[in-house]
Amino acid sequence: MSKVKVGVAGYGVIGLRLADGVSLQGDMELVGVADVAPTLSVRALREKGMPYAFYAASQDKRAELDACHIPVTGTLEDLVSKVDVMLDATSAGVGAKNKELYAKLGKKAIFQGGEKNSVADVFFHGYANYEAGLGQRFLKLTSCNTTGLIRAVDCMDRAIGVEKVAITIIRRVADPGDYHRGLTNALQIDHAPSHQALDLMTIMPHIAATGILVHTPVTHGHIITVVMTPKKDVTVEEALKHFRAHPRIRVVTIAEGFQGNASFFRYARDLGNPRGDMYEIGLWEDSIVKSGKDLMFAINIPQESVTIPETMDGIRACMGMQKDRIEATGTTNKYLGIGKWKDLA
Amino acid sequence: MSKVKVGVAGYGVIGLRLADGVSLQGDMELVGVADVAPTLSVRALREKGMPYAFYAASQDKRAELDACHIPVTGTLEDLVSKVDVMLDATSAGVGAKNKELYAKLGKKAIFQGGEKNSVADVFFHGYANYEAGLGQRFLKLTSCNTTGLIRAVDCMDRAIGVEKVAITIIRRVADPGDYHRGLTNALQIDHAPSHQALDLMTIMPHIAATGILVHTPVTHGHIITVVMTPKKDVTVEEALKHFRAHPRIRVVTIAEGFQGNASFFRYARDLGNPRGDMYEIGLWEDSIVKSGKDLMFAINIPQESVTIPETMDGIRACMGMQKDRIEATGTTNKYLGIGKWKDLA
Amino acid sequence: MSKVKVGVAGYGVIGLRLADGVSLQGDMELVGVADVAPTLSVRALREKGMPYAFYAASQDKRAELDACHIPVTGTLEDLVSKVDVMLDATSAGVGAKNKELYAKLGKKAIFQGGEKNSVADVFFHGYANYEAGLGQRFLKLTSCNTTGLIRAVDCMDRAIGVEKVAITIIRRVADPGDYHRGLTNALQIDHAPSHQALDLMTIMPHIAATGILVHTPVTHGHIITVVMTPKKDVTVEEALKHFRAHPRIRVVTIAEGFQGNASFFRYARDLGNPRGDMYEIGLWEDSIVKSGKDLMFAINIPQESVTIPETMDGIRACMGMQKDRIEATGTTNKYLGIGKWKDLA
Amino acid sequence: MSKVKVGVAGYGVIGLRLADGVSLQGDMELVGVADVAPTLSVRALREKGMPYAFYAASQDKRAELDACHIPVTGTLEDLVSKVDVMLDATSAGVGAKNKELYAKLGKKAIFQGGEKNSVADVFFHGYANYEAGLGQRFLKLTSCNTTGLIRAVDCMDRAIGVEKVAITIIRRVADPGDYHRGLTNALQIDHAPSHQALDLMTIMPHIAATGILVHTPVTHGHIITVVMTPKKDVTVEEALKHFRAHPRIRVVTIAEGFQGNASFFRYARDLGNPRGDMYEIGLWEDSIVKSGKDLMFAINIPQESVTIPETMDGIRACMGMQKDRIEATGTTNKYLGIGKWKDLA
Repeated sequence: MSKVKVGVAGYGVIGLRLADGVSLQGDMELVGVADVAPTLSVRALREKGMPYAFYAASQDKRAELDACHIPVTGTLEDLVSKVDVMLDATSAGVGAKNKELYAKLGKKAIFQGGEKNSVADVFFHGYANYEAGLGQRFLKLTSCNTTGLIRAVDCMDRAIGVEKVAITIIRRVADPGDYHRGLTNALQIDHAPSHQALDLMTIMPHIAATGILVHTPVTHGHIITVVMTPKKDVTVEEALKHFRAHPRIRVVTIAEGFQGNASFFRYARDLGNPRGDMYEIGLWEDSIVKSGKDLMFAINIPQESVTIPETMDGIRACMGMQKDRIEATGTTNKYLGIGKWKDLA
Repeated sequence: MSKVKVGVAGYGVIGLRLADGVSLQGDMELVGVADVAPTLSVRALREKGMPYAFYAASQDKRAELDACHIPVTGTLEDLVSKVDVMLDATSAGVGAKNKELYAKLGKKAIFQGGEKNSVADVFFHGYANYEAGLGQRFLKLTSCNTTGLIRAVDCMDRAIGVEKVAITIIRRVADPGDYHRGLTNALQIDHAPSHQALDLMTIMPHIAATGILVHTPVTHGHIITVVMTPKKDVTVEEALKHFRAHPRIRVVTIAEGFQGNASFFRYARDLGNPRGDMYEIGLWEDSIVKSGKDLMFAINIPQESVTIPETMDGIRACMGMQKDRIEATGTTNKYLGIGKWKDLA
Repeated sequence: MSKVKVGVAGYGVIGLRLADGVSLQGDMELVGVADVAPTLSVRALREKGMPYAFYAASQDKRAELDACHIPVTGTLEDLVSKVDVMLDATSAGVGAKNKELYAKLGKKAIFQGGEKNSVADVFFHGYANYEAGLGQRFLKLTSCNTTGLIRAVDCMDRAIGVEKVAITIIRRVADPGDYHRGLTNALQIDHAPSHQALDLMTIMPHIAATGILVHTPVTHGHIITVVMTPKKDVTVEEALKHFRAHPRIRVVTIAEGFQGNASFFRYARDLGNPRGDMYEIGLWEDSIVKSGKDLMFAINIPQESVTIPETMDGIRACMGMQKDRIEATGTTNKYLGIGKWKDLA
Repeated sequence: MSKVKVGVAGYGVIGLRLADGVSLQGDMELVGVADVAPTLSVRALREKGMPYAFYAASQDKRAELDACHIPVTGTLEDLVSKVDVMLDATSAGVGAKNKELYAKLGKKAIFQGGEKNSVADVFFHGYANYEAGLGQRFLKLTSCNTTGLIRAVDCMDRAIGVEKVAITIIRRVADPGDYHRGLTNALQIDHAPSHQALDLMTIMPHIAATGILVHTPVTHGHIITVVMTPKKDVTVEEALKHFRAHPRIRVVTIAEGFQGNASFFRYARDLGNPRGDMYEIGLWEDSIVKSGKDLMFAINIPQESVTIPETMDGIRACMGMQKDRIEATGTTNKYLGIGKWKDLA
């Protein structure tokens, strides 16, 4: 069976990780990546000897790229014409414009969380609504926080049923290496309810959700606390058992050294993971507490990499590569090396 | 009627604000403050011309103080012998030792949140359990987060009844000017449940509480999100009405400019409040949301100053200055200028 | 003698401190302040009972101000018509536009560091070139870093002569309470030479200056290291003697508790200074070292308040209130309470 | 020729990178690493399948390691007995104690910057004093800032001669993933002169050096500004030419995207470098300015990895693997992949 051909538009924080992710999938082929400018990431591509073919976002961007000695294979339109599906990780708003090109050339596309829901036919999460994405033309992935949150909520929902959740998102304000945005010695609050709670309800309409988001001046991972009302009473031990069984959730403890969000980054660097990335969310065993029937716990969301697996799932869904949710997510996990560590415990 | 004589042990972040607070109470007299070393705060006292009499923690500390030209009135024991009640804001553990001196000299004392509960006869909060402190010898104040949190919970509990709360404490990790502790580009999590939830249940045993605490690298105020299950359904408007009526709660909006914890500090500086302090907690109108019967909202805790009013209440309780909770807290509020701003709206 | 009438345009971080500064000058009268919107600072003005008359930047801004119950005395044009001199602390670019109004009404004005030099007749510093501002119509103040830096350089230049300086500016990236700009876990470098070095040469053309500026994620004060080549060799003790004699320089030590930039803010809060402000720059005795003839030392610049005294000097110069530099700066110092602490040592 | 056998004591931030570095050297063999506890890094070693043999610091530490399922090959003493040279990257003070073991077993050792100079026969830098380390028994490496700084100073000193330097070290206060130390919204100053200036003079006694160090709340790399007085006048272009020719210096520009210290980390992650590490220091072309004969410029020091190449050089020196400085450093560079990128420009 021939490999599914994939292109990536936007070689930024998410786009470059999507490219890495696709190149690890045994049943997919990364045709190339496209961007508008010789950013640091594009310059690094050149220093590495161009492992991925590079396409200029448009013809009029070639001069600047040529001046920086970036080998350019063609334009975005050239790239789109060669692929089965595009992963669009451009800045918010650009994806909606690119969609016209994808539609014109009759290609499928998966948009990232920054775009409006209306850009896509389906708002997608690999574990929670895989079936909804089957054979669809345009998918939009949930954003990083929502993707990680839904993993944990879907896990418990399938195991024991979830009635409602109230979340507090303690959000990192910038990515490592960002200078164009930041926050200094302040916590900043957003209007409630947070979009992540609303998004969760779009994906899982049978669950009530609300939440408050607070920006914090850090770069390594969001922490979300979840107050979850399950449909039936559940012990902490039983909840732990379900969380531990999920391939994309790492249950950790403070005693092991997971003292906060930066520990996951440290650990991933020590594991030798490229870029120090981690695909799994973390869930602190020490954080799980009960209040009446309610269960409360804290998770860690590695914002740069968490959506990569679910985007791979999205390719499988829209291209019909696997019909079954478990088979599809399992195939993604196998190629990304997710869950191998579970054999250690 | 003669004024109640008050002394302060420990002239640090809390102690110096307790001294300022007492000096504003028309029915109290600040006899003096005591500390062990010529800290920056003690040097500032000297530069201001010693508005408060200063006592050395012990005789053997005098040499260092003298070398820095700090006028010393006597020792801690001298100070204790002159007062009716001591406010102990020394470092954790020192208060328990000082208690022996207070007991020996037959004086009352109020300890701050850092000490163990066993140091005191009563764990005290001005609004929630004023009556329990009446005539008692040794009180311990709730810590800064718990003090602010209880204001909001007690407010709703008296108005409509509260069944349970689940809190997420987004905690500032250091005070402005701290170098001995800090956190850099990390969120750090504590074992759950947080002590603030346990402390709330000690003060208000009829309410179930749990919570998770996350340290963040900022210095201006904690933000706490509260998921509250009231005894009966309540609208956001009704909740707001109760919060707005509480003298020690400021209901604010993001649109006014209260974008986060640092806004309260900015506003207090602009108000001309000494040290840029604020006695009230903030509560964001924009943060109040509902999920089923549950009410969720976010509050801001000015960690340096929030316990000052409740400590003044504690003096009133243990000295029997007012028998009634409303009269006592109202008197404290009047002298501290709390709630005047409510007439503006 | 009648008081000089002063107005302030732009009631932000600098403008509100200029208003406070003017209101402390016994020979000046603050007519009022003007701004465009009901910011937190304007709301604080209202909560304080409008100690300063408030003027709307223009007629079409009144609706929003009225909706927030801000008492408005008139428009900016009304304010300008009543004063002798305007202090313009509006956002960069607005001052140049306001200048037309000042010129039309025949009033003098002093612009802050954000405006282009061309907006003014003279680029001004109270200590370094007071005489150049005498009787002039439009002055522009040096920016915060340059103002503080020049104090130290001018001090040594007058005492022993300075040949050249090479500065490293370790710059705070935002003010307390800022959310619109920030930096998170990064040091950011600017193109060299820094404008502060160039500005210093404009004010003191006989000194060669260069420098590098690095932004750091803090809010309390810049630290500048200065490598200074004096015209003749000078001992550390002699340099210290000159620095200590300057009214607007505080020589401090780490041992006293001045461990960094945040200590000055802590100390100013403890002194009871409004807003926790300090008008003096700090200079660490422990930082002064020599390398050959070169002298190296570090100073602390309280960015929010450091330009206030020199702006008061500017009023004195352009209005011809004092002809003599020492008399003028001394009068400013007296009214602002600068230098009283020197009698303590 | 048989490979030189190397062991690493202390598997922390530096130790684990030393192990990685040794394992890349074609003429060395990493026998194993030793540590006292099942830290996150040791747990990562286990998750990776133990690519390096692990030794317990002592027999009494085995129980805790066994409980965490860490395969232990033996004790530190076992490790030392098998190697030719130990790299000691234990906490400050422990190295001095370990030295007794190394001496007892007749092995050579290289200590990291945290130890006192007296622990070693020679204070070592691969480029500046390679010859001094030849055949010596105990070397101590310069610390991270000094190592990077000396690269730049030595480069210019060999090219044109350097008379003196005055440095400002803008220091990161913690490593990514640190919680035990940190700084929040403050710049902290140390007593001058900084030890890095003194250390430079120990290694290069013919150059006068002084400096001031300021701690900043960031985790990615120190920035040092250098005011350098060369022995003869040099143009910016000529200086650039020399810097560009140095294998361990990367000359970069802001326009390329190197806006600050975090850019190097971002770039190294994008290059696919393990842990996002970079062995080279960065030097900003945009920062080079002149003041008279003095040259001023800024460099970036990747604190976690910068000392690895010079430590490899140290092994070559003390083991006599290469007699020549250029041959030795060149061999290290070849195995670490340093300088390949220079062919790109």
